[in-house]
Amino acid sequence: MKVVDLRNRAWRFDDRLRYLASRGDILAEEYEGSVKEIISQVRDRGNEALIEYTRKFDGLELTQDTLEVPYEELENAYEELEEKVKEALEIAEERIRVFHEKQLERSFFKEEEGIILGQKVLPLERVGVYVPGGKAAYPSTVLMNVVPAVVAGVEEIVMVSPKPNRYTLAAAYIAGVSRVFQVGGAQAVAALAYGTETVPKVDKIVGPGNIYVALAKKLLFGVVDIDMIAGPSEILVIADEGANPSWVASDLLSQAEHDELAASILLTPSESFANRVKEHVYKILESMERRDIAAKSLERFGTAFIVEDLYHACEVANFIAPEHLQVMTREPMALLPYIKHAGAIFLGDYTTEPLGDYVLGPNHTLPTGGTARFFSPLGVYDFLKRSSVLYVSEEGFKRVSDLAEAIAMAEGLEAHALSVRIRMKE
Amino acid sequence: MKVVDLRNRAWRFDDRLRYLASRGDILAEEYEGSVKEIISQVRDRGNEALIEYTRKFDGLELTQDTLEVPYEELENAYEELEEKVKEALEIAEERIRVFHEKQLERSFFKEEEGIILGQKVLPLERVGVYVPGGKAAYPSTVLMNVVPAVVAGVEEIVMVSPKPNRYTLAAAYIAGVSRVFQVGGAQAVAALAYGTETVPKVDKIVGPGNIYVALAKKLLFGVVDIDMIAGPSEILVIADEGANPSWVASDLLSQAEHDELAASILLTPSESFANRVKEHVYKILESMERRDIAAKSLERFGTAFIVEDLYHACEVANFIAPEHLQVMTREPMALLPYIKHAGAIFLGDYTTEPLGDYVLGPNHTLPTGGTARFFSPLGVYDFLKRSSVLYVSEEGFKRVSDLAEAIAMAEGLEAHALSVRIRMKE
Repeated sequence: MKVVDLRNRAWRFDDRLRYLASRGDILAEEYEGSVKEIISQVRDRGNEALIEYTRKFDGLELTQDTLEVPYEELENAYEELEEKVKEALEIAEERIRVFHEKQLERSFFKEEEGIILGQKVLPLERVGVYVPGGKAAYPSTVLMNVVPAVVAGVEEIVMVSPKPNRYTLAAAYIAGVSRVFQVGGAQAVAALAYGTETVPKVDKIVGPGNIYVALAKKLLFGVVDIDMIAGPSEILVIADEGANPSWVASDLLSQAEHDELAASILLTPSESFANRVKEHVYKILESMERRDIAAKSLERFGTAFIVEDLYHACEVANFIAPEHLQVMTREPMALLPYIKHAGAIFLGDYTTEPLGDYVLGPNHTLPTGGTARFFSPLGVYDFLKRSSVLYVSEEGFKRVSDLAEAIAMAEGLEAHALSVRIRMKE
Repeated sequence: MKVVDLRNRAWRFDDRLRYLASRGDILAEEYEGSVKEIISQVRDRGNEALIEYTRKFDGLELTQDTLEVPYEELENAYEELEEKVKEALEIAEERIRVFHEKQLERSFFKEEEGIILGQKVLPLERVGVYVPGGKAAYPSTVLMNVVPAVVAGVEEIVMVSPKPNRYTLAAAYIAGVSRVFQVGGAQAVAALAYGTETVPKVDKIVGPGNIYVALAKKLLFGVVDIDMIAGPSEILVIADEGANPSWVASDLLSQAEHDELAASILLTPSESFANRVKEHVYKILESMERRDIAAKSLERFGTAFIVEDLYHACEVANFIAPEHLQVMTREPMALLPYIKHAGAIFLGDYTTEPLGDYVLGPNHTLPTGGTARFFSPLGVYDFLKRSSVLYVSEEGFKRVSDLAEAIAMAEGLEAHALSVRIRMKE
């Protein structure tokens, strides 16, 4: 973990800061050829290709009949949950649902003389949710990706997950998934985008995955809609002297344990505080099970920046546009107006990121690598689409027809003008 | 123009219908290599590459100082507008603005014991708008792409357009564009995505363009946000015997004149009506200036489908998910609940699409090629982004900390659990 002083200098040009801010450019092209091949095989040969790739990449021998996980298995996984975990997942599901209901959008219509204009809002019909399998199989991922779709009113939610574990299946049951297919990788994404004899074609694919999954989603954008292109995770903590350095240290580590590419960043006006946090980080690290991953992440990206003051901290945070931003200062609310770019903003000493990851309610699927400048957390809006509605009576037509004709002629689009003119005559 | 009967058969498998429904797959990979090269040159060499490509592709000799169109030229173009066009564009701008204001989203906060959760909604800081130059340079494109960004509150709107004509510049002035650069193609998209010494880096790029522009946008998705991947345009008209066949014909032609790849489709329960429309189409076509384009479009994609009844028509329309859907029946409103997938729905005989293209208010940038299943019209929501806001007091922490710890342990994420546990002790 590096300590870097940004005070009294042109901080925007600091090498470490720029290195952190450019972590976003991650989609290595070296895999593009093989992902394209997988996509075209699944598009052209359907199940056959899907089953072949699952054998090759997941070592799993499937048939047309075992691609889908029977719904009873979801129910069984749910029934067999430890009581404590079951309760936690159920409360989490409810809290996520209640928060996301605030994001629902309604259709609207407005009327004026002879003209009615509106916007009709409808859910997508069918969506696919990708959930990683194996080690990184998280029930919280299922809840966070599925519940917003349920709230939006999506009719059919299709989950794909290679070798889904019992927690993943139980969470799928709790969240309200319609069907689960035990496939993964680029082949699962392609199956959802084009449909196979067994896997239904969906309108949108969401959910995290490895580089193959991310590339397949990007390549298939347009054939289906996708959520954001997710890169490695990051946390940025703004803290003052009043914060507890061991709390800050453990929060930084909870990010670092995710992934060697994860970034943990502290901004503080106090150099001595930064050093105390650093000490705690290495002390806690020693006893961590996932210390190898966390240590590598800290070495590459872990940084404590010393800033002029808390307003300067907000400026630096906006420059980085972090996925997670924790504000552990004496007056956290006072900084909120200065924070412009962050996926989620955790205010106050007790608002540790893991609470948000699991149970508070807002989504934990957040824009990473600086894309919080333009992407939003996953939400109900991702599962809704809009159609414009227009009605013009003869009276309304008379009010606007001259204007439309004038612009059509200025654009040289004759038949556009004719469509207007032909209605004027009668 | 072909007449195809869909009655009394498995209509979803009709060849012509499937051909029309699969028009969406348009992003030819043959250009990908050259677009990638252009992008990397502009990223690495900035203005120098941008100026070289502009010389090569647009035959225009620019320098660092002439990349930008001076703001006075926008004002001059506005002052020199014919009075009628000026009035039309100004009223159009106002109507577009008023409609789009209904799409504004507000931040929200909700409180419960010891927990505050919310969503902060902010405009993007800087966006780029691509406007095609030359023949297909339309002032309405400028208004439709820029006004929603202005309504959202975007600070800086940067327009790029190769050889912008006076209407384009005047519309940019009316709409509220901040700066105009006279560059186009993939090189202009790359310049906006990465920034050059002169062109500012933006957060999102919107606007229509040729295949190079569309590919560049798709490749750069993730570096910046983009709007939808726009393909060729289409109109679908549902009409009954009561509609005026020459009106229907001219509306079909107003789509066909856009582009050889544009599709004009009629759905009607009346075979004789279909034939009458077809006659009018060919009669009007003869006298059209853009008849070569329109004739090619009609031959490839122009189709009148005979359907069982108007409900069947809605089913077929949903299958195609058209960009523009006109409903010219005796009771157009009665069909609205049955229409699920369309970019914009024009109800009634007088609601001809060109009115919507120019002056009514809803956006004319719409999802094409069947993507109305999951994409929305361009709107204010495209220029807003959201951050989650979370606050938990010590009391709130006690309510949820056990749950978060239970899930963290089920997921095997120890430091996540520690971040919670460390706060329990004190």
